[in-house]
Amino acid sequence: MIIVLKPDATEEHIDHIVERLRELGLRAQVSRGEERTIIGVIGDERLLHHQPISVFPGVESVTPVLAPWKLVSREFQQHNTIIEVGNIKIGGRKLVVMAGPCAVEQRDLTVGIAKEVAAAGAAILRGGAYKPRTSPYSFQGLGQEGLDYLVEARRQTGLPVISEILDVRDIGAFLEKADIIQIGARNMQNFELLKEVGAYDKPVLLKRGMAATIKEFLLSAEYIMSRGNRNVILCERGIRTFETHYRNTLDLTAVPALKELSHLPVIVDPSHATGKWNLVAPMAKAAIAAGADGLLIEVHSNPECALCDGEESLKPAKFKDLMQELRLVAEAVGRDL
Amino acid sequence: MIIVLKPDATEEHIDHIVERLRELGLRAQVSRGEERTIIGVIGDERLLHHQPISVFPGVESVTPVLAPWKLVSREFQQHNTIIEVGNIKIGGRKLVVMAGPCAVEQRDLTVGIAKEVAAAGAAILRGGAYKPRTSPYSFQGLGQEGLDYLVEARRQTGLPVISEILDVRDIGAFLEKADIIQIGARNMQNFELLKEVGAYDKPVLLKRGMAATIKEFLLSAEYIMSRGNRNVILCERGIRTFETHYRNTLDLTAVPALKELSHLPVIVDPSHATGKWNLVAPMAKAAIAAGADGLLIEVHSNPECALCDGEESLKPAKFKDLMQELRLVAEAVGRDL
Amino acid sequence: MIIVLKPDATEEHIDHIVERLRELGLRAQVSRGEERTIIGVIGDERLLHHQPISVFPGVESVTPVLAPWKLVSREFQQHNTIIEVGNIKIGGRKLVVMAGPCAVEQRDLTVGIAKEVAAAGAAILRGGAYKPRTSPYSFQGLGQEGLDYLVEARRQTGLPVISEILDVRDIGAFLEKADIIQIGARNMQNFELLKEVGAYDKPVLLKRGMAATIKEFLLSAEYIMSRGNRNVILCERGIRTFETHYRNTLDLTAVPALKELSHLPVIVDPSHATGKWNLVAPMAKAAIAAGADGLLIEVHSNPECALCDGEESLKPAKFKDLMQELRLVAEAVGRDL
Amino acid sequence: MIIVLKPDATEEHIDHIVERLRELGLRAQVSRGEERTIIGVIGDERLLHHQPISVFPGVESVTPVLAPWKLVSREFQQHNTIIEVGNIKIGGRKLVVMAGPCAVEQRDLTVGIAKEVAAAGAAILRGGAYKPRTSPYSFQGLGQEGLDYLVEARRQTGLPVISEILDVRDIGAFLEKADIIQIGARNMQNFELLKEVGAYDKPVLLKRGMAATIKEFLLSAEYIMSRGNRNVILCERGIRTFETHYRNTLDLTAVPALKELSHLPVIVDPSHATGKWNLVAPMAKAAIAAGADGLLIEVHSNPECALCDGEESLKPAKFKDLMQELRLVAEAVGRDL
Repeated sequence: MIIVLKPDATEEHIDHIVERLRELGLRAQVSRGEERTIIGVIGDERLLHHQPISVFPGVESVTPVLAPWKLVSREFQQHNTIIEVGNIKIGGRKLVVMAGPCAVEQRDLTVGIAKEVAAAGAAILRGGAYKPRTSPYSFQGLGQEGLDYLVEARRQTGLPVISEILDVRDIGAFLEKADIIQIGARNMQNFELLKEVGAYDKPVLLKRGMAATIKEFLLSAEYIMSRGNRNVILCERGIRTFETHYRNTLDLTAVPALKELSHLPVIVDPSHATGKWNLVAPMAKAAIAAGADGLLIEVHSNPECALCDGEESLKPAKFKDLMQELRLVAEAVGRDL
Repeated sequence: MIIVLKPDATEEHIDHIVERLRELGLRAQVSRGEERTIIGVIGDERLLHHQPISVFPGVESVTPVLAPWKLVSREFQQHNTIIEVGNIKIGGRKLVVMAGPCAVEQRDLTVGIAKEVAAAGAAILRGGAYKPRTSPYSFQGLGQEGLDYLVEARRQTGLPVISEILDVRDIGAFLEKADIIQIGARNMQNFELLKEVGAYDKPVLLKRGMAATIKEFLLSAEYIMSRGNRNVILCERGIRTFETHYRNTLDLTAVPALKELSHLPVIVDPSHATGKWNLVAPMAKAAIAAGADGLLIEVHSNPECALCDGEESLKPAKFKDLMQELRLVAEAVGRDL
Repeated sequence: MIIVLKPDATEEHIDHIVERLRELGLRAQVSRGEERTIIGVIGDERLLHHQPISVFPGVESVTPVLAPWKLVSREFQQHNTIIEVGNIKIGGRKLVVMAGPCAVEQRDLTVGIAKEVAAAGAAILRGGAYKPRTSPYSFQGLGQEGLDYLVEARRQTGLPVISEILDVRDIGAFLEKADIIQIGARNMQNFELLKEVGAYDKPVLLKRGMAATIKEFLLSAEYIMSRGNRNVILCERGIRTFETHYRNTLDLTAVPALKELSHLPVIVDPSHATGKWNLVAPMAKAAIAAGADGLLIEVHSNPECALCDGEESLKPAKFKDLMQELRLVAEAVGRDL
Repeated sequence: MIIVLKPDATEEHIDHIVERLRELGLRAQVSRGEERTIIGVIGDERLLHHQPISVFPGVESVTPVLAPWKLVSREFQQHNTIIEVGNIKIGGRKLVVMAGPCAVEQRDLTVGIAKEVAAAGAAILRGGAYKPRTSPYSFQGLGQEGLDYLVEARRQTGLPVISEILDVRDIGAFLEKADIIQIGARNMQNFELLKEVGAYDKPVLLKRGMAATIKEFLLSAEYIMSRGNRNVILCERGIRTFETHYRNTLDLTAVPALKELSHLPVIVDPSHATGKWNLVAPMAKAAIAAGADGLLIEVHSNPECALCDGEESLKPAKFKDLMQELRLVAEAVGRDL
């Protein structure tokens, strides 16, 4: 940590800070420049987490030297984390496509879509049993019943299933029925939920919050890992900006940036990011080209009747075409699909 | 709802949409313009909540005519909602200042700060027992013990207390010990928590999420009200923008905008918005001038040792001065403090 | 244009609006719904450009039906515009890479870099003679002398050159010496400059402003085209968001969105967008996968000594490798390079 | 400047950096911590403006210690700058309200509005002769003729006039006819225009760009001051965020922040920021409470016929009422109006 002092900081101010650092077991190196005095803090700067140095008299600014996370970092673990879900490996050379309806609606429909995405080459079935909806008057999901339909679809297709958890009290059902637990964008900083899923070793797909920085995103992953669960998958799904022509702004630069900072796999969700089915294919290809380890894509056999997000769902035939196109892009960047 | 068709929409497209609207019990008025055909939907457009009209063939765009909320709206209730907490009225002519430490840390410290803010004219004591922290390594709050310290501070000062809930499983403790339950910015779209606090009549202060639009903010309030709890207080606390000189960008235009759209009281939190104690006073005054019904302000007797957000805390003497200044501004805009 | 009235709008309000529309040569279709009355405007809604309908008494909201642009739109011209610069075609099946130093610094250095990018397969040489710098104390470019170095580099390599204009008074020099005139992000709404370059047929590369919506971007292109210059190239170069880990947020969704709305070619600048050389390659590949017609990439043979933006410059060897990788991605999406 | 090295930085890396700093006339202080080595740069860090230290091998990050501006800073000049325009002082205890139509439209209308705002207590007349419009098809202003109408209005009322310049070639007319030259938000980084107005001593009102940080805003003011013109007025007019319920998000926290960092006067424009006349009054009051030195407000006697921005214009009677209310708020914060 580097502490820059104000031009009018006094020797008493400096002594006061240095003494406080010493009390905490840290060493201070005072460097008197021409226009500012700077104090470098030597030792484990995490000891300063509970200490607001910036309010000490004479302090102008405080800059941490180390990243605030540990377990998620590439510095902590050099090699890529590969997460196994049944026979599927997430984070390896082979890309993983998770596809299915936004919301689980009916048993037959769910099984039908599962069969279609499996046939097209999807490795995992996605489907929301509990739906976080902006309006209380929108369809809120089938709940437990929806989870059961996913289980049935898995039984018939062999595809592992991923579904979103909204409530800590549902953890038991998700541990039992889901293969990957999804934490949605709106819950990225629902820390109680992060702690809860951190207590098990069930794989967790953590979506980036709409206004979350890369730093906050990695710290939320650190919440899960610091509780013991090492099976965390990061998912970029668009951030909120001033642009309204598409639902969110897909931040693909996050993909190489996250891969550089962290060893965790990174997945991209072009469906929720764009909110428009005709933008899904180009952004899916771009995500692969940017280095993503996989995709989360909405597929619905009858978007006109989808109870949720029909606007962004691909029909199965379009999805099948897209998978073909994605294979070519994957090969072009040295990956398989 | 108004449906604008693409230039190449066919008569079959139009018939298909009109028929679907009729099935839903709605009437369609087709208007053929020079460059576009438009379909106006007559009837209760909420029937279309589960129907993605924009994916119908031939549709270019869909614009709702009605606001998506009901209970929170000024159209539904013309007069201002006034919420009573003990003797305190929130939303009336008299402004309400809620003050206290960011986090509850120790019994004596909490009681001491409570006495100081009471003496300065605060009406309600704020203090976090459970703290949502970006990093898992930061102080997470005292939990139940913190709530007990607030209860003790209330006993000694008579100030009602407000504290933030993070976990649906803690609802019992909050109903028993807090006078107002706070939902923080990070949980504004934690819909399970909204539903939970909506099931009682305990007053709820709902903070706007960092990336939440006015529309989403009111829909989250609608979640609470639609479950039966009419005692909702809105709180503007800064939104996330590109500016990094202060922690967030306090959006004071939201104050008159919310007062126009809704009958609910609106409170402003200049401490979290700015993240710097020296910006708190001017923004507190600006909030009152903009029409806020009250303020949420952090006060700490020793910010250098605060375990959370010391940077933005006012010392009691500064807070006392600020209260004097706020009285003058309140009078200038026809309010009391 | 669709005018939604307030619930308390009166017949006088309606008559007043309808009459005003009639005076302007438009027809009004009044549709009385259950909760709102709506007025549809039939005729050329561009006649309303000078008329603030939203301030008429009784009006709640006004929604245009037509896009505000014309010449740039896909509706106006179905086929892709292909712009010819010497032998180079921009907007066709073959992708175009424009590469070179951020700023033109010395004659030999410029010629040297030009030779290297030409050898690697770049089609056009980029280089800033006039530099828009945030600080008045940063290097402001060599001006006319810089343009002359570009001319010399073109003479020796055959590469057409693109350079940024900052001042309307320099138009003569740019018409004479540059092959493509660049309008930078900061000048996207410098309308006098847009009008100036619109008066000639010299190709113009228009960069999207840091806070410009798709709509505003296309309207700025419309400024140029409406003056007669049809040779406009759009360039996405990152927008400003809350994320600070990279310089800007590259908005690749803009690529397919712009291609859908407009017939103009779309180029992507991953160097300025990311501001970090190690993020340039993945984002360049992603841009091609998303459907871009080309790239603008900074290359410098000695980034440590670059007077401007050395952080984001690729060394020639890295650029050469990248060109190889881009060829594979281009082929995967049916393009050549 | 503080240079943090990567964990794997070698002694050669360190030597290379230290040597380069020495060549530039700077001193390096190397501090070896437990997890990182840090190099503090002692001397005038502005010497590093042309040197991209962050690309040197082994460098992780570079943090400047000093603000990048000088002349605009409170450190450079402790006391407030007060700018005199005729008898009017901007930046003193007495607040200055600049009011008038968005665009100058007709001679009599302009003079009439000028008389009304003068009678209500405005000190300066605002009016756009040249209008920067998003669409090429919107009214672009009367140009020179508009300036002449402002001159006539000044002759009849005695009010000094402010008007926006768009083109460097118009500088002569503005020097002759305007009392304050306005640089609009879209031109905040039109550096050629900044340099041009910097060459004279005519007062300049510089509006903050829609996506400009506080830092960039002050650097644009520094452009003007570094050319010799010390008469710069800063103007906050709303920034672009994700919120669309109002045109822009008025960032009032910028007011105390700018007053702390700089000695220049700060004015607020609530009309352009909100884009809705009914939000202008509360935000004008809030601006004064936040510490602004004045306001820029649109007033039009017939908003229904305004050729530009009628939605946000106050009628003269509303403006008169607002001036009364503003007087009370001004007094409450120790200012006069």
